[in-house]
Amino acid sequence: SGLVLVKNPHLDLMEEDILYHLDLGTKTHNLPAMFGDIKFVCVGGSPNRMRAFAQFMQRELGLAGDGEDVADICAGSDRYAMYRAGPVLSISHGMGIPSISIMLHELIKLLHHAKCRDVTIIRIGTSGGLGIEAGSVVITDTAVDSSFQPRFEQVVLDDVVVRSTELDKDLAEELLTCSRDIPDFPTLIGHTMCTYDFYEGQGRLDGALCSFSSEKKLEYLRRAYDAGVRNIEMESTAFAALCGLCGLKGESCRFHLP
Amino acid sequence: SGLVLVKNPHLDLMEEDILYHLDLGTKTHNLPAMFGDIKFVCVGGSPNRMRAFAQFMQRELGLAGDGEDVADICAGSDRYAMYRAGPVLSISHGMGIPSISIMLHELIKLLHHAKCRDVTIIRIGTSGGLGIEAGSVVITDTAVDSSFQPRFEQVVLDDVVVRSTELDKDLAEELLTCSRDIPDFPTLIGHTMCTYDFYEGQGRLDGALCSFSSEKKLEYLRRAYDAGVRNIEMESTAFAALCGLCGLKGESCRFHLP
Repeated sequence: SGLVLVKNPHLDLMEEDILYHLDLGTKTHNLPAMFGDIKFVCVGGSPNRMRAFAQFMQRELGLAGDGEDVADICAGSDRYAMYRAGPVLSISHGMGIPSISIMLHELIKLLHHAKCRDVTIIRIGTSGGLGIEAGSVVITDTAVDSSFQPRFEQVVLDDVVVRSTELDKDLAEELLTCSRDIPDFPTLIGHTMCTYDFYEGQGRLDGALCSFSSEKKLEYLRRAYDAGVRNIEMESTAFAALCGLCGLKGESCRFHLP
Repeated sequence: SGLVLVKNPHLDLMEEDILYHLDLGTKTHNLPAMFGDIKFVCVGGSPNRMRAFAQFMQRELGLAGDGEDVADICAGSDRYAMYRAGPVLSISHGMGIPSISIMLHELIKLLHHAKCRDVTIIRIGTSGGLGIEAGSVVITDTAVDSSFQPRFEQVVLDDVVVRSTELDKDLAEELLTCSRDIPDFPTLIGHTMCTYDFYEGQGRLDGALCSFSSEKKLEYLRRAYDAGVRNIEMESTAFAALCGLCGLKGESCRFHLP
């Protein structure tokens, strides 16, 4: 049917669903009228960048206005920022798995309440590249954890539930084809490693704590490269798992900063 | 000596230390001049609340101005917001362990470079209460994980390192004593449970996914209460572990929203 799948039997029994961190709700907002025609959702860490992206999309789509007047739909909450440009929604998710998970739970319920169909979700932004040219874009085929395994371990109460982290292969190929029209950005498909920490978790030597040598770091990153990892960030496994479970066609494209 | 402990032998070898997510650095800013007299750091999730807290502190401390003119010291970055009021620094940390960890690594290095002494750090904000009156404040003695254990598992490269999550007991008692002057807010000392997820991880029945019954949720929360847990949030174990390792006197006080 193209609708998103909300796998929660409790939801239909609720009189009102409040999307706390988005400052939206089923009684306070007409979600089908506000969002029913959304076809693409782009998400990224930084609120300023997601605002700039919405302005860029407004210009690209030739929509009215000079692109400077996008309004934050979640202005009543400072947890996330949300903008729209035609059928494209642009939302920030902060940094790390817990932060993106809260946003995705509420976004998926939003798309469900709004009865959106055939929505594609793309995660954009930056990441650390691994053995690739600076300025490259990595399209993720599979998100992997710090042991290079394609899994996301979600703690549900005190049970650990293991979830798959494959992303949409057709969408990855489609995005790779699009990239051929933009010669300035070398683009490749590869695995993306997701960590819970920016410093010790990613082998950075400049954190407040660092108990490993640069040799140990290099040996680890070499193993990651050999396992197919081409970039490292902090949200992809949770993103892939939630998209997969809720039937959202999802991809992640991240730019490796020069 | 009262200085913070930065346990990273690589740091002294670096010509410049850039605190990326705070938009500060040792070459671009005179950190001892800007921050050398800081004695208290208060951190919380929401940037707007941390701004309001800095304005409140300005008024409480009788500092010049009407309290409306606090400037965001990290204005060049939209990852975190930072304000100061006299010897008090007020910083936002976003939601979840990965987000607070990035901020704490850079804050601890900031205090180190600025040669701050005898700094107390207090996490403030809201949390979900467990079997306590709405409107109560919970002062954390120990942060526990979803199995009610006083530990924080940090993945360093691909090793799991287990860290202690005890907070400063004297500071907790001192804060409890202060609370006696404010009769409107029942205050107690208890364990704080830290989860990686707001919906499935905390037994909420209104997420995009929910695979457990309300009976199973209640049974889990009852076990948590019996283990001494009085509130639930998403940052305390990482906060306690990093403060402990770096010699920062730390506490967490969270308000249970009515």
